[in-house]
Amino acid sequence: MAMVCLSDFEAYAKKYLPKIAWDYFAAGADDCTTRDENILAYKRIRFRPQMLRDVSVVDIRTKILGSEISFPVGIAPTGFHQLAWPDGEKSTARAARAMNTCYIASTYSTCTLEEISAAAPGGLRWFQLYIHRNRAASQQLVQRAEALGFQGLVLTTDVPYTGKRRDDVRNGFRLPPHMKVKNLEQAFEVCKMSPLDPSVTWNDIYWLRSLTRLPIIIKGILTREDAELAVRHGVQGIIVSNHGGRQLDEGPATIDALVEVVEAVRGRVEVYVDGGIRKGSDVLKALALGAKCVFIGRPALWGLAYKGEEGLQDVLRILQDEFRLSMALAGCASVSEIGQHLVQFSKL
Amino acid sequence: MAMVCLSDFEAYAKKYLPKIAWDYFAAGADDCTTRDENILAYKRIRFRPQMLRDVSVVDIRTKILGSEISFPVGIAPTGFHQLAWPDGEKSTARAARAMNTCYIASTYSTCTLEEISAAAPGGLRWFQLYIHRNRAASQQLVQRAEALGFQGLVLTTDVPYTGKRRDDVRNGFRLPPHMKVKNLEQAFEVCKMSPLDPSVTWNDIYWLRSLTRLPIIIKGILTREDAELAVRHGVQGIIVSNHGGRQLDEGPATIDALVEVVEAVRGRVEVYVDGGIRKGSDVLKALALGAKCVFIGRPALWGLAYKGEEGLQDVLRILQDEFRLSMALAGCASVSEIGQHLVQFSKL
Amino acid sequence: MAMVCLSDFEAYAKKYLPKIAWDYFAAGADDCTTRDENILAYKRIRFRPQMLRDVSVVDIRTKILGSEISFPVGIAPTGFHQLAWPDGEKSTARAARAMNTCYIASTYSTCTLEEISAAAPGGLRWFQLYIHRNRAASQQLVQRAEALGFQGLVLTTDVPYTGKRRDDVRNGFRLPPHMKVKNLEQAFEVCKMSPLDPSVTWNDIYWLRSLTRLPIIIKGILTREDAELAVRHGVQGIIVSNHGGRQLDEGPATIDALVEVVEAVRGRVEVYVDGGIRKGSDVLKALALGAKCVFIGRPALWGLAYKGEEGLQDVLRILQDEFRLSMALAGCASVSEIGQHLVQFSKL
Amino acid sequence: MAMVCLSDFEAYAKKYLPKIAWDYFAAGADDCTTRDENILAYKRIRFRPQMLRDVSVVDIRTKILGSEISFPVGIAPTGFHQLAWPDGEKSTARAARAMNTCYIASTYSTCTLEEISAAAPGGLRWFQLYIHRNRAASQQLVQRAEALGFQGLVLTTDVPYTGKRRDDVRNGFRLPPHMKVKNLEQAFEVCKMSPLDPSVTWNDIYWLRSLTRLPIIIKGILTREDAELAVRHGVQGIIVSNHGGRQLDEGPATIDALVEVVEAVRGRVEVYVDGGIRKGSDVLKALALGAKCVFIGRPALWGLAYKGEEGLQDVLRILQDEFRLSMALAGCASVSEIGQHLVQFSKL
Repeated sequence: MAMVCLSDFEAYAKKYLPKIAWDYFAAGADDCTTRDENILAYKRIRFRPQMLRDVSVVDIRTKILGSEISFPVGIAPTGFHQLAWPDGEKSTARAARAMNTCYIASTYSTCTLEEISAAAPGGLRWFQLYIHRNRAASQQLVQRAEALGFQGLVLTTDVPYTGKRRDDVRNGFRLPPHMKVKNLEQAFEVCKMSPLDPSVTWNDIYWLRSLTRLPIIIKGILTREDAELAVRHGVQGIIVSNHGGRQLDEGPATIDALVEVVEAVRGRVEVYVDGGIRKGSDVLKALALGAKCVFIGRPALWGLAYKGEEGLQDVLRILQDEFRLSMALAGCASVSEIGQHLVQFSKL
Repeated sequence: MAMVCLSDFEAYAKKYLPKIAWDYFAAGADDCTTRDENILAYKRIRFRPQMLRDVSVVDIRTKILGSEISFPVGIAPTGFHQLAWPDGEKSTARAARAMNTCYIASTYSTCTLEEISAAAPGGLRWFQLYIHRNRAASQQLVQRAEALGFQGLVLTTDVPYTGKRRDDVRNGFRLPPHMKVKNLEQAFEVCKMSPLDPSVTWNDIYWLRSLTRLPIIIKGILTREDAELAVRHGVQGIIVSNHGGRQLDEGPATIDALVEVVEAVRGRVEVYVDGGIRKGSDVLKALALGAKCVFIGRPALWGLAYKGEEGLQDVLRILQDEFRLSMALAGCASVSEIGQHLVQFSKL
Repeated sequence: MAMVCLSDFEAYAKKYLPKIAWDYFAAGADDCTTRDENILAYKRIRFRPQMLRDVSVVDIRTKILGSEISFPVGIAPTGFHQLAWPDGEKSTARAARAMNTCYIASTYSTCTLEEISAAAPGGLRWFQLYIHRNRAASQQLVQRAEALGFQGLVLTTDVPYTGKRRDDVRNGFRLPPHMKVKNLEQAFEVCKMSPLDPSVTWNDIYWLRSLTRLPIIIKGILTREDAELAVRHGVQGIIVSNHGGRQLDEGPATIDALVEVVEAVRGRVEVYVDGGIRKGSDVLKALALGAKCVFIGRPALWGLAYKGEEGLQDVLRILQDEFRLSMALAGCASVSEIGQHLVQFSKL
Repeated sequence: MAMVCLSDFEAYAKKYLPKIAWDYFAAGADDCTTRDENILAYKRIRFRPQMLRDVSVVDIRTKILGSEISFPVGIAPTGFHQLAWPDGEKSTARAARAMNTCYIASTYSTCTLEEISAAAPGGLRWFQLYIHRNRAASQQLVQRAEALGFQGLVLTTDVPYTGKRRDDVRNGFRLPPHMKVKNLEQAFEVCKMSPLDPSVTWNDIYWLRSLTRLPIIIKGILTREDAELAVRHGVQGIIVSNHGGRQLDEGPATIDALVEVVEAVRGRVEVYVDGGIRKGSDVLKALALGAKCVFIGRPALWGLAYKGEEGLQDVLRILQDEFRLSMALAGCASVSEIGQHLVQFSKL
């Protein structure tokens, strides 16, 4: 079977992963409306391609928070990579480094931050943080990440409690006994009473700020009001995200929310987006609407499920080729030429 | 089979109820457009969730007409509960009391008001009234209800005649011989010439007013004009309802009508809504658009069909958990924080 | 099989009519988009029902061009009724008279005007005219109709040539040898070179006017421009029609066109509509949007196919009952109370 | 099987062509959204037909760049006609001449320009050009075309690189060994490194201008900005095209883009459109929205696949008959009477 586009990897993963793992990765909250809307919303955006631009050389490189990446697609934080591939996050880290892009390692990794670092020294990585009831545990994680050379701290804001994913409830999902949320092993066990702290508020950004010199990127923002608050609380970046539709169902598609967040932010901090990216042209649309970079979640897992590090590189390479081609066909020779004039919202 | 969400109960009821009973409960008028629109219209509303609010404690209690209920979901009036479960409305009353919410008992109950009262003393209950050609019979019902401690009188306005439900016509639906509309036993028999009075007008509100000191809630209002009339005629509450799509097909979805009714009422009386509630997040949407409380019809019957009193409690508990989680994920720690800023209508 | 609604008759006709006849009646032009849109467009209109009106008596009678009919539904002109039932248009005439409504007999009847008249003396009938290349033949038809007591002359304007109905082409549709277009027998044969005159213009209204004292109703108008021209040329009525979607595909649905025609006409002449009426509530919508009466085409043929005169009466009686019920549920006690306040266009 | 409409030819081609050839012709880029939108967009346009115009004679002739054609439908440039029929482009040229319309021969023909010319001397033909890295090869092609009597030069602008057509990648599509891109045989081989020059810009129009006295028609324009640039760079015509949805997926449907291009051009040059034409009424819509002529791509190939020259004539004849009938039914007796008043965009 030729792996031509990302849905080939999805089909592979659906076929070969254990059902309980596939269901966990695929799950959306409740009716999965938002999960699916993330994809559909891209289809309602139309390009306005420009002809007869010199696109003999197409430069797809960009920078995020000052670091150059080979193209504006990074790896979003997702949990439990060993469910997809035995080497877990170590493979992810290697693939991201090989493709010269950014990998946001999740708190809920099945490898430790140290293992991830050691697997791919020198790779550009950010660390995704949930603030726990046990604040000391969170503080320790942040400081470990900083010490290991992670270059950004991504605070996830949309999980005061876990969303209701019906299939996980039906399956009684839990990690197989041989896998562990290793980063937190000492502190507490997953799948008992949730360790996440639902009392976190905007003021906790100041507390985080006091712990680390890493830039803070806030993830889960969907409205102009929260975007304004994020900027005022001094974050360095915003990831427009609805957690892949796994938390509050029937919130906005992220590409739709991106528009209002970008407008509110007015360039004061970098804005990124995740959710629903399935083709290189989706990346182009997100950038045209103001994202500095996008992050992929499930497609990275499909790549891992296919062939580990190599499979994830395949996924990234396809996105890269498709993104470059889309840019050329839209008349853009470099990322800086991408702008809102390239897209319009379909009336349908 | 795990009962994870309300559609699990629907599937159960469809599988295990006698077809004629399932068809009766499921029926909509004509093409069932409005019945289905009630559900679809919720899907067109998108949340605007707020992040980083302290939602460590989420208080879902509210009050309707001064009585506290455990969460803003009550039991809408539906007929013939013995078709779903042998104990009929007695089970309904017990479940509502156990969950500390309001149960609107229907004129067309298969238990008497006295039996309902005795089954769950002290429960919060309203009585739903049709005005009959035989006004004395109606007067007697109102006075029995008041004497039994029912705390509200719900006047249904959308049944001057019964809607055309094709399946009921095909099935020749009628109550099995061992069930009776017991509240009306002396006065007349159901399923002959309709006992409902199609000449009722707004002036009959004054007549009702003269019979009882109970608050009057008017059910079946769908337009701003009628909402204004209701307020002017001195009702204490309005239930925006289209009778579950069983009367005039192709009227508005209730959640859409709610918006215009709330706007017209301008807070002068409490506004409630029924029809199409299938998830806790639907409750949140209805409250965001101005409802003080919602009522569930068919889902309550599915709960009864599953396990009587216990099954209905399961349904209510699921809604309660989902509602609490939706509030937390949207950033609301109490019902008073829910407002229109939380939602927007999707353009699709 | 219970005949509960009009689609039951459609299913019956589809099952029992010869395929070639079913296909002929069902056919739309090209992709059948307009044929289907006629129905779908009704579904996009929502009622705004009014509660607590006295609807103990609902008067559904109305008048068209001064003649009272039992309810605002007449029989649209369609050809070849013998394809549906041996007695053909004689049965149609009898059913229309029995139900006290108007029957527009087609030029392409398989019975003569004389036979139709004799079958149901005293019934309210209009005669539908195509203007033929042989003007003398047309003149003779008009004068026969007037002499026979037909009370209106309906000029069809949308058939300068026959629309392309793919199934008819594939089937090689033609009348079986034992049926004839009897009204035209002497003048020419159908299914050879079309006898219809494609050079007819608005001025020919004056010619028609000179032939008869019957009121002239113009059929096939879909735009405000043509509505204005019709009024200026002195017609007495307009039937908004797209020939059941059998002529120009992808014109407007008739209920949509009705709105603009009614607006342009400003009450100067009566406006009717045909196409897509399948329920009594469709009739109510058409009247709310300004139609004085609607006409049914295919449903009348389904009734004939079911049981001839009796089957067509069944169809009309169902529409009558449904229309009366819709009025009551919308809060209207008489046709004069129906108005635009009762409906709104859905945004979907 | 009767060949009644263009989809009959499509079904035939799908059934009888080798899969690899069918897939190649049918392919769209990526998700094929734009390929399909080209068709769907026509369905959202509604006619506003005018009644009672004299349409006894309907003149469907028109002129493009001064040359009369029998009706406003030409043959768009598509490659590799031998994949559809052994005689390839020679059959296409003969059919176009027989039907007295314009054929745009593709650079990627499987016959030489000389063979095409010799097959149908005197036919109206334009030559479609890609500008190659080897500019001398392009210059030679232009000059051969001019010398052979081609009357227009069509510059395709939307292929700096080939779009990603998944099925072609899966199939490993390449020309069978016995077919050749004969026009380019000496210069280079297809299916190795793309010979197309992605550095072409608007200035190259001036270079082309210097090579030939043929009118230059630019193909692939989709926005008002590019339309303005085209006019300023002195082209004689614009073909609004998205390459049948084979290049940048999720650009606009061509009929939608036509509206904005026509508006920008303000009559300064002729505007044509291709993509999605499947019925005569589509032609009428395109002309109503300002196209001077339309071009068909895939339907021409289906005609070839059916019966070569004869099959393509069948396709053109069906379009011709349908177009003439649509005009008559819309009330137009000649192409000059077609205008924007005949159409409106459906809200759905």
